[in-house]
Parts: sequence; C-alpha cells; structure tokens
Amino acid sequence: MTSSDFPSEKRSYGLVVVGAGPGGFDAALEAAGEGIKVALVEKELLGGTCLNVGCIPTKLYLGATSPVEELEAQSKAKVAKGEIEIDFNALCTKKDRFIAATRKAMEQKAKNLGIDIYRATAKILEPGKVEVSRPGETAVLEYENLVLATGSHPTVFPGLEPDNETILDNTGFLSLTEMPESLLVIGAGFIGLEMAQIAHRTGCRITVVDAMDRVAVYEDPEVSKALQGIFKRRKWDIRLGVKVRSVSAENGKAVLRTEDGDELVADKALIAIGRRPNSSGIGLEALGIETAGPGFVKVNENLEAAANVYAIGDLNGHILLAHAASHQAGYVVRRIAGKTDGPYEHGPVPSILYGSPETMRVGSMPADLEGKGKVETSSFPLVANPIAQAYASTQGFVKVIWLDGKVAGITAVGHHVSGFTTAAAMIVQEGWTENDIHKVVFPHPSLDEALLGALKADKQAL
Amino acid sequence: MTSSDFPSEKRSYGLVVVGAGPGGFDAALEAAGEGIKVALVEKELLGGTCLNVGCIPTKLYLGATSPVEELEAQSKAKVAKGEIEIDFNALCTKKDRFIAATRKAMEQKAKNLGIDIYRATAKILEPGKVEVSRPGETAVLEYENLVLATGSHPTVFPGLEPDNETILDNTGFLSLTEMPESLLVIGAGFIGLEMAQIAHRTGCRITVVDAMDRVAVYEDPEVSKALQGIFKRRKWDIRLGVKVRSVSAENGKAVLRTEDGDELVADKALIAIGRRPNSSGIGLEALGIETAGPGFVKVNENLEAAANVYAIGDLNGHILLAHAASHQAGYVVRRIAGKTDGPYEHGPVPSILYGSPETMRVGSMPADLEGKGKVETSSFPLVANPIAQAYASTQGFVKVIWLDGKVAGITAVGHHVSGFTTAAAMIVQEGWTENDIHKVVFPHPSLDEALLGALKADKQAL
Repeated sequence: MTSSDFPSEKRSYGLVVVGAGPGGFDAALEAAGEGIKVALVEKELLGGTCLNVGCIPTKLYLGATSPVEELEAQSKAKVAKGEIEIDFNALCTKKDRFIAATRKAMEQKAKNLGIDIYRATAKILEPGKVEVSRPGETAVLEYENLVLATGSHPTVFPGLEPDNETILDNTGFLSLTEMPESLLVIGAGFIGLEMAQIAHRTGCRITVVDAMDRVAVYEDPEVSKALQGIFKRRKWDIRLGVKVRSVSAENGKAVLRTEDGDELVADKALIAIGRRPNSSGIGLEALGIETAGPGFVKVNENLEAAANVYAIGDLNGHILLAHAASHQAGYVVRRIAGKTDGPYEHGPVPSILYGSPETMRVGSMPADLEGKGKVETSSFPLVANPIAQAYASTQGFVKVIWLDGKVAGITAVGHHVSGFTTAAAMIVQEGWTENDIHKVVFPHPSLDEALLGALKADKQAL
Repeated sequence: MTSSDFPSEKRSYGLVVVGAGPGGFDAALEAAGEGIKVALVEKELLGGTCLNVGCIPTKLYLGATSPVEELEAQSKAKVAKGEIEIDFNALCTKKDRFIAATRKAMEQKAKNLGIDIYRATAKILEPGKVEVSRPGETAVLEYENLVLATGSHPTVFPGLEPDNETILDNTGFLSLTEMPESLLVIGAGFIGLEMAQIAHRTGCRITVVDAMDRVAVYEDPEVSKALQGIFKRRKWDIRLGVKVRSVSAENGKAVLRTEDGDELVADKALIAIGRRPNSSGIGLEALGIETAGPGFVKVNENLEAAANVYAIGDLNGHILLAHAASHQAGYVVRRIAGKTDGPYEHGPVPSILYGSPETMRVGSMPADLEGKGKVETSSFPLVANPIAQAYASTQGFVKVIWLDGKVAGITAVGHHVSGFTTAAAMIVQEGWTENDIHKVVFPHPSLDEALLGALKADKQAL
C-alpha cells in the first residue's frame, strides 16, 4: 500500500469525523451538504455495527422468516396449513450482498459530496490534530471541528468470551449459514430476543437466560410480562434471575454453568449481555476528555467533550440507538454550521423490538414519573382490534402514560405495533390532552385504532 | 312477535339514530355517554356494511391469506420455499364468528349505556316523529334530534345484476366457502382490488375490467401505475377503458360482454363498480330534505339536512369511508350536547388500500392543487428502505406533496405502507415545513424512514 490509498494530499478539514456508523456517516453527509470540507475516518466498514452486524441484518432475517410466524398463527387459527423452509445459507448470502451494496452506495454518496474517506484508525494527537494510520501508512489531519462517533462493541465478561464457533456474539450469529438445533441465549435484551426469534423460526430449541427477573428489562414491566407469556407459549425455556458463572465450548457443544451449580447444554450459545463504548485507543487523553462508567465519553449540553470536539451516539452513552446517533449528528452539524447555538434537545426517542410480537416505547414510562405529578395509564387490548384479529395475533396491548393530563409516554406489545411508532412519538412530543384526540382522523380499520382506543380508554390512577 | 320486542314503552328520545353502521353506532354511543336518551334503529345488522360485508371481513381475509404473499415474495428472493393452503370454508366460518361476536359486544355495550335498540325500518313522519316498523309491529318515536346514518349499497346497473351465485357483489363474495378457479372483477376500485387479491392468493386467475384508463382512479396516477405494474407481474389480466355491456350467468359461468363485442368468461364475476346512498324510503320528503347526484342527502356546514336532523357518513356523500362517518358522528354529538357550535371541520381523512401492496393517501394530491400555489413533490423509493428489503417487497414509493413550502398531502404504495398513515395524517394536518422534519426522531430501522426520506428528498416543481 502506498500513500495514494489515502484520498487527499491536503490534510486540513472543517470537520473530521471518526467512525462511519449511523451517527458519524450522517454527520459527514450533512456537513458536506453545508459546504464544509469533511474527512471521514473508519477502521472497519462503512455503516458500523448497525448496518453490518446489528439492526439491519437482524431485520433482514426477521423479515425473511416472518412468513413462518404468520403461517404458524393462521395454522393455530385453523384457517391455513403448510410448510415453510428457510434456506439460511441463501439468506446469509442475500444479507451480505444487500449490506455490501448499501456500503457501496454510501461510499458513492460520500464521494459525490466530496467527502474524503480514510480507511484507517484514528488517534487524537493534540487539539486540532488527528493521526490516521493503516499498515504502512500514516498521516496527520488538521481539524476545525472533530466528531467522535466510534460506537460500541459487545460486552465480554471473563468466562464468557465468544469463539464465534460455538459461543457466538452478534457478529458470529449473523455469520451462521445454518441454524443450530438448540441455542442458549445469554441476555434477554433486544439483541438476544430478536436473534432468539430468528433461530426459533427455523425450528431451533431456545433457552433464554438472564440475571434480571424479567426479559426486556428497559421496557415497562407489563410489556416484559406479555413478552414472556408469548415466548413461553412457543415453548421457550426462559430462566430469569440466573447468575452465569461461565459459558464454554466443550466437545462442540456450548455449556453454561450457573453460580448455583446448574449446567445447561446446547449446540450453540449467543452472548448478548450489553454493549460497551469504543473509547479507548482514540487519544481522548490528549484533550483531557473524561469518561464515565464503562468508558462513555462525558459531553456538555452541546454534546461537546472538549472545545469543538463532539462525541455522539453510543460513545456518549445517552441512548444506544442508531436513530439517536443520527439525530445527535444533525444537531452537531447545525451547530458547527452556525444554524443553532442552543443546547442539544431531542424529542422522545422511540425504541422498537422487532419480531413476533413487536414492542414499541416512546417517552416516559410510569417508573420514570414517580413523584413528578399525577400519573395515570389507559390501555387497549389488541384482541379488540380487527387487524390484530386478521393476523390471528391478538396477544398484547397499547398503553398510554399520562402525566397531569398530558400524554407523557406510549408503549405497546403485539403484532406489528412498530407501525404506529412515529405517530406515537409525535403524540408524546406534542403532549396531547384528551381534547387533542379528536384533531386527527385515524384510518379504519387499522392497528392504529388500538392506539386511539388506548388514548380514549378510562384512565387508571397509578 | 309482540310489541314487547320493541325495547321501551316510552317513545320519546333526545336522539334517534337511524342506521347502526360505524357512523350511527358511534353517534348513539357518544350521545348516551353525554347522558342523552338514545334510540338506535337498524333494519339489518349492527355494524352495517363495514362490519358485516365490507372493511372488516375483507381485512380478516387479507390478513389470514397474507402468509401466502409473504412466502411468495421470499420464494422469489430464493431464501424460502414451501406451500400454504388456505381453508376458505374455515376462514369464512371464523369470519362469521368474529363478526357475530363483535355485533354481540356492540349490542351489550349499547344496552349498558341505556340505548334502546329498535330492529326495524324507520320512516320520518313529520318534524319530531319517526315511525319504526317490523312485521306485525309499529311504533312512533319522538325525537329532539335525529341522526340519519343509513349508509350505502352497491351500485347495480341494468344488465349487471348480481345473483350471488355466479355474479357476486361484496356480500356474495364474502359468503363464498371456496374460491373459484377464475374471477372476473368488474371495477378496479378498492373493493374490487382487495377482493381480487384475496382470490389471487388462493390460486385464482384474475381478470380486472374497468371503464377508466387506470386502476384505483381516486389515487395519484403514479400510485395507480405502480399498482398496475405489481398486479401485472402477478399475471393479472387488467383491461382498462373497457365499456361493459352486460354480465350474465350462462351454463354456470360468468360471461361479460363489452360494448366492443368482446366476450370474457370466468367461473365467477364480482361487481364492484361503486356505491349508492340509502336515501329512499326513509321519508326525507316529510321534512323537505333534498338530495343530489345518486341520492346523497344535502347537508349544511353543520351536517344538518333540516333543523335538528343530521345526515352523516355515506348518506351525505362527502367521503365514503367508515372513519369519516365516525368522525362526523363525534362532531354531531358534540354539537347536540352543546359542546361546539362551529361548522363541521375535519382534518385530512386518510384512505388505505390493504393487501400486497398497500396504498395510503392523506390530504391533497397534485391534481387537487392546480392553481392554488407553488406545488412541488418529493419522493423516496422503497427499494432503499431496509424493512421493505427485509420483506423482499421493494416495489413502491412514498410521495410528499408540498403547497407553498408546506406538506399538503402524502401518498404511498408498497409493502405495509398503511403503517405510517396516522403519522402522515398528523404531518399533513400540521402542515409541516422543512424545518419541522427535525422535530421528531423517527425510529431506525423502520418503514417510516421511507416517509422521512420522502420529506427530506429534493423537491420537484410540478
């Protein structure tokens, strides 16, 4: 490799972005759109975790295997019968092709906007200077503004190291070309639950283990309870409150041992116990930038970690979701471009678990609002909705959380409830009162009418 | 039958509602909730066309047969294979049970609120008096307010009368316990297209005939074009600009003859060429109420056809959609209860075609805005959306219509686009400008991001 692999001779930029995941890539794109000269540094793949080994491939798998679940629901309702076989090898290939094509389109888009892409690691040297390096090649970039968007990686505890043969992390799971007959899922968060559903749809026996006393612990407890009920009806072995001592590959099997001395064995194990920020090795110390907890970069109200240095997305730990990173990117660029000087504010950030069922949540849940005013909830069961009936998937509900008579949060669990997430985000953002419900004509019939039903239902004081 | 079949000895009501479809039933319910003494008169079934032979059973059929289409899409993408068989007899039974249960729940709800239900025909005698009658029984109800919500029925032209054996209307189609091998659909509106899709999914050969030059003529022409493309790829025989002379049952087959002398033959034909209001025989002349066109009741800005007499829903012909009727019902009851005295206003009323693909539309289309200001459009193709990719259903787009820099309308065609209808309705209602786009954090990944993409895309002047 020669120095010509680096895109430009000129090394001075209005903005250097480190990390080309959703946050970093969007920051680069939007800044270039503002006429700022941008360098985008990425040591691995454009698109980051989300595109390559996270949200996007997971959703591709869930979408592709969705007919299995839909047929199962209609079979139970005795109106359809049949067999569906998923070709996992073909699906994995399709996924790789789609992701590669997306990366290529991203690269082209960036180049069209005049963004210099450095495929290299980055290290801050001193204020205004970042060193980029790849084998045999090093350069120093000068920046007026720096956006750090290095993302996160899966948490690994001693005794739970993935080998990505038998003990998998998200990357290993998404590289499988055939599904195991049995899978141990360690961690009942969104990543674990979505991947468990994918495996389940291929006929894989599922065991889910979590240290907490419920699945999807960031959700409202009623949502967790509904999820557990649905998964248990699918014969999942869900073990909660379990302290895992070790997971190891033994004779080609995954063996989990608990602190209580229990032993669980499966063909493979998936470790999905959380994520840690990628904050080491990027030279934070050169600017005196501080971190908190497992390494989240501390930022001020403008998302600045130091003067003209911003940390966005998973790296600052505010909300570990791709769309939160993108939204922060938009703010930072508007700030750099002189279009805003106020602090970073975001409306309610929605969160979705995909699969069957889905969950959605936006705004505050009852537990967030203790002592903040008069908290009430109103809810509507999906069994009373004709679209849920049509899909023979009537388990679940929509729940509205009211604070002093205004909508403060909305959550739901059930078939396709992700569909009304944006509407729910707008309703929470606008803080609807009872009187606002008549403003908008909801379509009929629609799943959204379950949201309308929850908004109109009698309120229960908490 | 004795007079005790009528619910009450007292025949004096604050509100008499004629017709228990979505408009009439909601009016009765909401008025009872306001403490008004209500009589609800229905000559057929609670729930009207929508529940019994319209939107609800159609959606049940589309939902139940959805796995067929989803599997087909994944099969074409070569990641799944299999066979699904729909038991249409079981589906028809399930549908009948669900609808009967819903009617029962409606009746119970009405009774719990103290509503008197008269299973009878209604005829206005003079201001303040309606006669209700059923075989062997007649009574006169006195009203302070009257809501006419008698709905509509399928249009029948001479030479195109359904026998509901071979030549079907919506009621006949929804009574089938097995699907024919071939179906002639006369009328490419929403009813025809949804029912054609149901039949298609059971392997039925589809021919669609319409007098217009495109399908779904109330939609934006680009949407019609996309629909035609998708249906043609499914080998539908779509014949546009065809003048039908007659459809008749001959030797157990449906035979269609065109004005041009062509002849089309299929196992059955479905006639879905529009709907006419049920305005005759209800005594409109006793109050001097006028009708227009095919019999739509003329109303003033308060939806009044005469003093204290309201006509809502299909009967007034404003918008022939169930949710429009319900919304009008809410206004009328608030007016009767003294809670509003302004004219009837409704926000944008969304319209959805269900199936694969779906369409959604809300607000104004370009053709509606000619000469009203600076009209621009911006759009986003579904092929660039990861959720559409996940379902291997990437045909279609989202299109935003801008008037003088504000969102005036949104339409879309493609996989599950109904999901963002309520969000789109809110955006149109609020008349978003470019600056409003940043207000709301859209979830990622989601189909809604295609809507966001269309909002953000470069605008094209019309």
